[in-house]
Amino acid sequence: MPELRRDVVSGRWVIIATERASRPTDFARGREPLVAADRDRCPFCPGREDQTPPEIYAVRTAGPRDGPGWRVRVVPNRYPALRIEGELQAEGGPLFERMDAVGAHEVIVETPEHDTHLGLLPGDQVVEVLRAYRERYVDLDQDPRFQYATLFRNHGRTAGASLAHPHSQLIALPVIPRRAEEELEVARRYFVEHARCLYCDVVSAELQRGERVVYENDVFLAYEPYASRFPFETWILPKFHQASFGRLEDEELQELADALRATLYKLHAALDNPPYNFIVHSAPYVPLPEHLYHWHIEIMPRLTSVAGFEWGTGFYINVISPEQAAAFLREAPARPPAETPAPPREPVEVHGEVGAQ
Amino acid sequence: MPELRRDVVSGRWVIIATERASRPTDFARGREPLVAADRDRCPFCPGREDQTPPEIYAVRTAGPRDGPGWRVRVVPNRYPALRIEGELQAEGGPLFERMDAVGAHEVIVETPEHDTHLGLLPGDQVVEVLRAYRERYVDLDQDPRFQYATLFRNHGRTAGASLAHPHSQLIALPVIPRRAEEELEVARRYFVEHARCLYCDVVSAELQRGERVVYENDVFLAYEPYASRFPFETWILPKFHQASFGRLEDEELQELADALRATLYKLHAALDNPPYNFIVHSAPYVPLPEHLYHWHIEIMPRLTSVAGFEWGTGFYINVISPEQAAAFLREAPARPPAETPAPPREPVEVHGEVGAQ
Repeated sequence: MPELRRDVVSGRWVIIATERASRPTDFARGREPLVAADRDRCPFCPGREDQTPPEIYAVRTAGPRDGPGWRVRVVPNRYPALRIEGELQAEGGPLFERMDAVGAHEVIVETPEHDTHLGLLPGDQVVEVLRAYRERYVDLDQDPRFQYATLFRNHGRTAGASLAHPHSQLIALPVIPRRAEEELEVARRYFVEHARCLYCDVVSAELQRGERVVYENDVFLAYEPYASRFPFETWILPKFHQASFGRLEDEELQELADALRATLYKLHAALDNPPYNFIVHSAPYVPLPEHLYHWHIEIMPRLTSVAGFEWGTGFYINVISPEQAAAFLREAPARPPAETPAPPREPVEVHGEVGAQ
Repeated sequence: MPELRRDVVSGRWVIIATERASRPTDFARGREPLVAADRDRCPFCPGREDQTPPEIYAVRTAGPRDGPGWRVRVVPNRYPALRIEGELQAEGGPLFERMDAVGAHEVIVETPEHDTHLGLLPGDQVVEVLRAYRERYVDLDQDPRFQYATLFRNHGRTAGASLAHPHSQLIALPVIPRRAEEELEVARRYFVEHARCLYCDVVSAELQRGERVVYENDVFLAYEPYASRFPFETWILPKFHQASFGRLEDEELQELADALRATLYKLHAALDNPPYNFIVHSAPYVPLPEHLYHWHIEIMPRLTSVAGFEWGTGFYINVISPEQAAAFLREAPARPPAETPAPPREPVEVHGEVGAQ
């Protein structure tokens, strides 16, 4: 019997209808070639630093700014959806409200290597990527015009990636998106009623039940949400309470790198390099009581197409139950076979300019 | 300069960033072959009526029930996302709320012809399709367990259509989807503030400005919404106030067929048969003051992929301005070249059983 489940953090309903698909392995078909065609003219490869706007942040082992020798590099998006300059005032009346698209749109190039993937990178490289996330996220918070920022990653063409070279993006907005507002409102109501953080309660309940857990370490939990919209949708939450991604301490970054890498590797191994999106949901930049949000990462493999019903209603049909998906991913390896400890790395120099834009 | 626009009926923000794309014609690449591969085993083609569950409604010129001779045929979905039987009671507490997925899931087969498309059918055939929509929509309203229903159409694989034969779907739900609730709430607040229907005001303002109008007749307006999420997103609204799709009179059906057919033909001609979804947004089945909603159809061509940012925030980036898109579609033909008046058709027999499920 198909089941209706309500996602507690968004209020949306999902239909879990497992009769349409058969087994989790039906989804394990490789979709995204790891070796991409655009290597010859990739603007994110070392040696082509002049094809991007000047860098805002970089982790370097050598070389001058905007030259090769970097391990992680952050640049403004060349075709930004938002611009740093412009008027913030809304105009146009209730029916035609508009403002200049003021904001920031940055690209985090995760590695100099073209043909790899975040889940396949060495652990300390993932730590450096996450540190770049945090530094840029915190830096943009200094700008009083920005109310909200989101970090996200598109992997594979189906998931909207226009360039294959491993990269993530950061967008800072002058308004709070509707979906973020909804999550805040749900968390606020839950706190009023239960005097506890909704997400902390979800973490406890999921750890206790165990059936939807994919991976955990001391600090982070990766699990399939009870009302997963998509097959193999996986969320990563800090087990401790923390409203904003920007508050992550260095030791926590290490643990997050471990959990993110393990989860992405499991998806990669179990589903043969599926296209996916992930999004960091964090508290808004505007001041907010610490107990009213709990940042997390939502990873959404793009294995099924979203059709009219989902678009029209925000009501999803998922053909794999999250319990099945979690069992399948728990079995999958968390690391490449025979991973040897990484050799000691060269000393790095991190440079980032606050407000460099 | 990219622009932020707020959609007044949903409250969501959209970035109109036209620098990434160049001209509307960049999107005019044929994507969906009209002649589909699955003709040999299509369960919706005449002669294979035994491959679907028994019909609920049909417009026939000949033949017995569940045999050939139909012009429009409605059957339960063979792999329904929801079932007619089950328990409606929610259970599982606040964190794990669930209920049986009780509801209806029907398929409206729009024509016996396999290789065509709703926008290419003769006008009276489209009227018969829309009448089937209305009859089934109204019939399911009799079931007190259903709170909301939606009619939708997926055209092309990219848009989630698993079968090529022209068909639409109807889903009735035991809960009101979140997105519908949001629209109701926005319309309610607007009414409280302005004592007018929000959608009626949008219709007047769009007709007055004209720059986003795609097509109109005496009764319906097709236009590109001010905060379009997708290139060539087109909405069709009745110019007069009407909350529920189920209230459409026969003469209004004729006019809707004209507007829908013209809009779909324009999209087909201008964008070379693009994949798209359309969704009928109607008032819930639950009793509601008539002035609090205004049904409409949202047509969403699927020409760009939706990536992490959009998924994560509900905040869309559109690379074509709705004004550009509307100008392009206004120029496109509304009818096939040299369309001759249809010959008189054979008399039809409509059979539908109320509560046949």
